[in-house]
Amino acid sequence: MAVRLDLNGLLATAVGADGVGPEDLAALEPMLARVRAELAARRASGRLEFADLPYRNEDLRRVIEAATEARGEFDNVVVLGIGGSALGASAVCSGLAAQTPGLRIVVADAIDPEAFGTLLGELDLRRTLFNVVSKSGETAETMAQFLIVRDRLLRELGAVDYKRHILVTTDAQQGALRQIVNDEGFRALSFPAGTAGRFSVLTAAALFPAAAGGIDVEELLAGAASMDERSKTAATPLADPPLALGGLLWQLATSHRKSIVVLMAYCERLAATADWFCQLWAESLGKALDLDGRTVEWGQTPVGALGPSDQHSQLQLYLEGPRDKSVVFLRLEDHGTNVDVPATYQDLSAVGYLGGHSLGELLNAEQRATELALAKRGRPSATLTLPVLNAFTLGQVFYLCEMATVAVGALAGIDPFGQPGVEEGKRLTFGLMGRPGFEASRAEVEAWLARKDARFVI
Amino acid sequence: MAVRLDLNGLLATAVGADGVGPEDLAALEPMLARVRAELAARRASGRLEFADLPYRNEDLRRVIEAATEARGEFDNVVVLGIGGSALGASAVCSGLAAQTPGLRIVVADAIDPEAFGTLLGELDLRRTLFNVVSKSGETAETMAQFLIVRDRLLRELGAVDYKRHILVTTDAQQGALRQIVNDEGFRALSFPAGTAGRFSVLTAAALFPAAAGGIDVEELLAGAASMDERSKTAATPLADPPLALGGLLWQLATSHRKSIVVLMAYCERLAATADWFCQLWAESLGKALDLDGRTVEWGQTPVGALGPSDQHSQLQLYLEGPRDKSVVFLRLEDHGTNVDVPATYQDLSAVGYLGGHSLGELLNAEQRATELALAKRGRPSATLTLPVLNAFTLGQVFYLCEMATVAVGALAGIDPFGQPGVEEGKRLTFGLMGRPGFEASRAEVEAWLARKDARFVI
Repeated sequence: MAVRLDLNGLLATAVGADGVGPEDLAALEPMLARVRAELAARRASGRLEFADLPYRNEDLRRVIEAATEARGEFDNVVVLGIGGSALGASAVCSGLAAQTPGLRIVVADAIDPEAFGTLLGELDLRRTLFNVVSKSGETAETMAQFLIVRDRLLRELGAVDYKRHILVTTDAQQGALRQIVNDEGFRALSFPAGTAGRFSVLTAAALFPAAAGGIDVEELLAGAASMDERSKTAATPLADPPLALGGLLWQLATSHRKSIVVLMAYCERLAATADWFCQLWAESLGKALDLDGRTVEWGQTPVGALGPSDQHSQLQLYLEGPRDKSVVFLRLEDHGTNVDVPATYQDLSAVGYLGGHSLGELLNAEQRATELALAKRGRPSATLTLPVLNAFTLGQVFYLCEMATVAVGALAGIDPFGQPGVEEGKRLTFGLMGRPGFEASRAEVEAWLARKDARFVI
Repeated sequence: MAVRLDLNGLLATAVGADGVGPEDLAALEPMLARVRAELAARRASGRLEFADLPYRNEDLRRVIEAATEARGEFDNVVVLGIGGSALGASAVCSGLAAQTPGLRIVVADAIDPEAFGTLLGELDLRRTLFNVVSKSGETAETMAQFLIVRDRLLRELGAVDYKRHILVTTDAQQGALRQIVNDEGFRALSFPAGTAGRFSVLTAAALFPAAAGGIDVEELLAGAASMDERSKTAATPLADPPLALGGLLWQLATSHRKSIVVLMAYCERLAATADWFCQLWAESLGKALDLDGRTVEWGQTPVGALGPSDQHSQLQLYLEGPRDKSVVFLRLEDHGTNVDVPATYQDLSAVGYLGGHSLGELLNAEQRATELALAKRGRPSATLTLPVLNAFTLGQVFYLCEMATVAVGALAGIDPFGQPGVEEGKRLTFGLMGRPGFEASRAEVEAWLARKDARFVI
């Protein structure tokens, strides 16, 4: 079943001056045609590796093998990873795992001592596999988690048995973690070299925990491939879902000052997909330089929202505040589970009307109401509808969002890969943590702290 | 122990042209003095009711009584509420409940049928108290949850016993829920009439679940009162924490185009406090009209972030993207729990340096590194440090944020109370759900859907 993208609410016909008008569309179409050709050329020459992830059958076979093995041995899989090494796994597993009979999957994406200590204290280590995921194999947070877990396993299970409780996903060749795998003989899967963490939801990084959790990862990839096929065979760029979505959001950002994109999911299981999208959009599109090295400081700030909760939190701002947002709704047509509201207090008009409806109906009515309320205030929105939530439809959503991101990168003239800005903070952390060679960074932080004016510390 | 607010990173001395300069400060100080006087006058005349919540001893006594009773009877408390009727309870309970020996508290703030159905299926209803929280007593989502739960309780426990499993928190006089309480004889607590949902964290709405969860709510109120005292007795407006924080963020919004405020917590237990803040800031300050009825479409978009996870997700954008953000860090000096990283792989420079440090150290080093990395790119940030996380410090944070919000409202000339924009969406939902009297709203949604151009549904 195909997801359906409704772009009407982004148009001037729906929202007036703040929407995409006919002239905008006329200008956009040839640009999108160029982007389409450019991305096809990059892909053909092997410079858009993530786009072919739905077709890597050998990787898939290895993932399914490892997951089958894990399901025979363990009750829990704990993913140790952060950022792109965690968000994809969370999106897939919290989206789909509840429906499936597999291992319990926990994505431990942070190093908060209270949270991490509590998690380790609760687990039966003998029944737990730790999946250590880091592309570089040097991520400070993940390596710290790994060292702590390794030590606990070693002490509790002994030097022979502990090794089978660790499965590493990292670069096939490089990095400290790969070296450790080689030295210690841990089991391992490969993180494809040409794929950035935030584009890794269709790699072993997310597919292994998903498969261990009982999710049909072949269907996930088939869903992604079906979106790829729809995109490639669309008659016009505006009928190509990722290009059309990316193109209109970019148009609204550049010509209508929509500097914020809100992804608002009307389904709790899709909240983690909104978080995943926020990383994809922010880290890919937030760039200081364009492709020619000129300073542009471009980017759209993504905001994840959950309906209807955020109707009671953020919607007032979206409706009446600055006109700086485009909203993309994720709507689930059939929620799978039905919970009906019984007819009660029929004489109370403020309550009685709810009887006989299901929660899914109420949820979907609220999404439509919010969509129209936004439109009436001239605030643009698009709606992506999943007929049902399963691996096939979620795979389509992932692929759509990834290709839309790359399309916006091409329109904005920036490189959606790489994250040059964050290196500085890593160096400063290394300095504070006493990593040899980073003494100057430590001194820099100390100077910064010493320079603070006490009058402004209150 | 007092929280500490470091404003240095917001200043031009730290971040250059994008920070608050000496002229800004000189202009701001008399404005803040006026706001201070104005708020004091409003409070003295009883028009700032939430500000006196730390001192309502009679309400507190009732909450503690009800919580003590609940702790003798139940194992779980499930809060049925949404928006302001849920976010405060979540912030307090997820901030503090882990440390305390009380009932298990679940805040069920959404109507997703899968999530809500699963929750109801897992609970032992005989050991569960449902705390139905709605100020108006007519919130569609909460009333739907209530009707479903009431029906299940009635069927499972019978017409006599089921009533003691429901505790209602609503307006003392008005609304459908109060009428139901009166008719059915449910136990009830009062939601103070003059306090908006988003300012209700120090009312029964959050204090009851907190107290039932074993949290020292007297300390929470004492913390809030201590912030009130610090604020009132500060020698200058810039030494008054809420005024100074609100004033500088407003200055950056108006004179330096910082239209987004990021609240970034380096402590997982404070993530729900960031969500709470996001409602407070968005719904209070996102307003179409100023106090004179002129169209201003003002507001700052709040974004909740969690460190270090979001360093691997949002930080690239914060550092290199548009200069449209002020960041406020929540930093925890002492994490309470210590988890140490064992010294391992000392010969691997990319890993070995981690040994001998604790996770709390790493977390706090990352916060400092991020703060400095932002400053080096000219991006302003403030840091609010909690010496420890307990009821007393969290109470200070709540009161600080609430009063800062009201201060920004006064500076921007808007009314921080009320949420006029969201009424439209409620009417449209009523229409779709067939509530009598809302037939025109239903027709409006149907017309909106019928008007959609099929070419833009792909």
